[in-house]
Amino acid sequence: MVQLFDDERFDYLLAEDNMHIIQSPDVFAFSLDAVLLAHFAYVPIKKGHILDLCTGNGVIPLLLSRRTHGSITGVEIQKRLFDMARRSVELNGLENRLTMIHGDLKEMKDVLGHSTFDVVTCNPPYFATPAKTEHNQNDHLTVARHEVHSTLEDVVKASKLHVRPGGKVAMVHRPGRLVDILTLFRQYKIEPKRLQLVYPKQGRDANMLLIEGVRDGRADLTILPPLYIYNDDHSYTMEAEGIIYGNQ
Amino acid sequence: MVQLFDDERFDYLLAEDNMHIIQSPDVFAFSLDAVLLAHFAYVPIKKGHILDLCTGNGVIPLLLSRRTHGSITGVEIQKRLFDMARRSVELNGLENRLTMIHGDLKEMKDVLGHSTFDVVTCNPPYFATPAKTEHNQNDHLTVARHEVHSTLEDVVKASKLHVRPGGKVAMVHRPGRLVDILTLFRQYKIEPKRLQLVYPKQGRDANMLLIEGVRDGRADLTILPPLYIYNDDHSYTMEAEGIIYGNQ
Repeated sequence: MVQLFDDERFDYLLAEDNMHIIQSPDVFAFSLDAVLLAHFAYVPIKKGHILDLCTGNGVIPLLLSRRTHGSITGVEIQKRLFDMARRSVELNGLENRLTMIHGDLKEMKDVLGHSTFDVVTCNPPYFATPAKTEHNQNDHLTVARHEVHSTLEDVVKASKLHVRPGGKVAMVHRPGRLVDILTLFRQYKIEPKRLQLVYPKQGRDANMLLIEGVRDGRADLTILPPLYIYNDDHSYTMEAEGIIYGNQ
Repeated sequence: MVQLFDDERFDYLLAEDNMHIIQSPDVFAFSLDAVLLAHFAYVPIKKGHILDLCTGNGVIPLLLSRRTHGSITGVEIQKRLFDMARRSVELNGLENRLTMIHGDLKEMKDVLGHSTFDVVTCNPPYFATPAKTEHNQNDHLTVARHEVHSTLEDVVKASKLHVRPGGKVAMVHRPGRLVDILTLFRQYKIEPKRLQLVYPKQGRDANMLLIEGVRDGRADLTILPPLYIYNDDHSYTMEAEGIIYGNQ
């Protein structure tokens, strides 16, 4: 029996698959961003090794486990979140394929080796580190949202280190950082290949981006059709619903 | 009376404004790309100086002349196209505000000065220079479409040279070059600020992009709502029609 602490709760991750995840509103709850990335990222179906950096409570490895029979490793720097992720793996009986590691993504070379993964995914902190006084009062949320422990460059550098040549790196981020992301991807030899913009609804500016690059790939970017999340009446679009409820 | 040569013809550019343009199907005919850029680019309304690089038959200066009372300078390396542009300016009685220059955009420093323009626009050749044997048999079209005389970097470098600090640079290009464009813009201190993707129709990948940067601007990119050109029945979307026929 997996234990819950403090305000933690079991949430349904995918009702139809009877998949659960442990989260806590005060510490971390996965977001739409993670769900979209887990849908967007290429994964090998039959076998292979996948690495998820900044894994939080493990939502991306859990979701990806439905799409691949390969192994998935998550790395999380926050002990409390790592522990939630570890217990969620146990809760869903996925210990044979999913491994959670508590550590700093900048220091994983000895643990994970280099060029060992077919795919690296990451839903990194979005915001540059704010002044100390601006920090979210909740330390767990601050670390999850701001570049406190690792910058975007740290994340891209680690992705490059761990992905094999020809392997893929997929990330979700904010449109305001697109130039940084594309520049850093290219700098670290992860050539951007697929870009999708996510719009809250028609007529609005994009508020999220999904990007996938190939290590040592040839320059040739495809920009996919946009993804709209809400209809004008605030209901989910059919496409978003299909992704969120796992029908796609 | 403005003269026509060979297979040149007067085409309506904007029927409602009674604006005409000289073009030739064998040499150069303006494309939707130019029309979209002329709509997308910011221009000062009352006064100011605008520069259009790779101006071709002058379609962008002609279209922009409806949106600004400022002066517009076009630079074209191909004599034949420059001459069509020059005569189109005359045809529309715009000699007092529109100036066409025959020359190489890489060598305009003495002619145009540096940091002298509020806005620079460019619809550059899209394709990297092909092997000699692959060249379009028509030399005029080859130069207009391929990076024969100037590369993307030449264009960005010239834009940086001629635009004033705080001034804007707007370009239309293919999605496959987005990474190059954003990287070069940043390298030459033209910070990308507005990006719009153009899709032929819903459900398709983007086939064009519109980008605007600000010289010495702060990093903060906005990705605008996508622009769709055709409905499923191959008619123009209302938005495209508004742009093409000048109602927007």
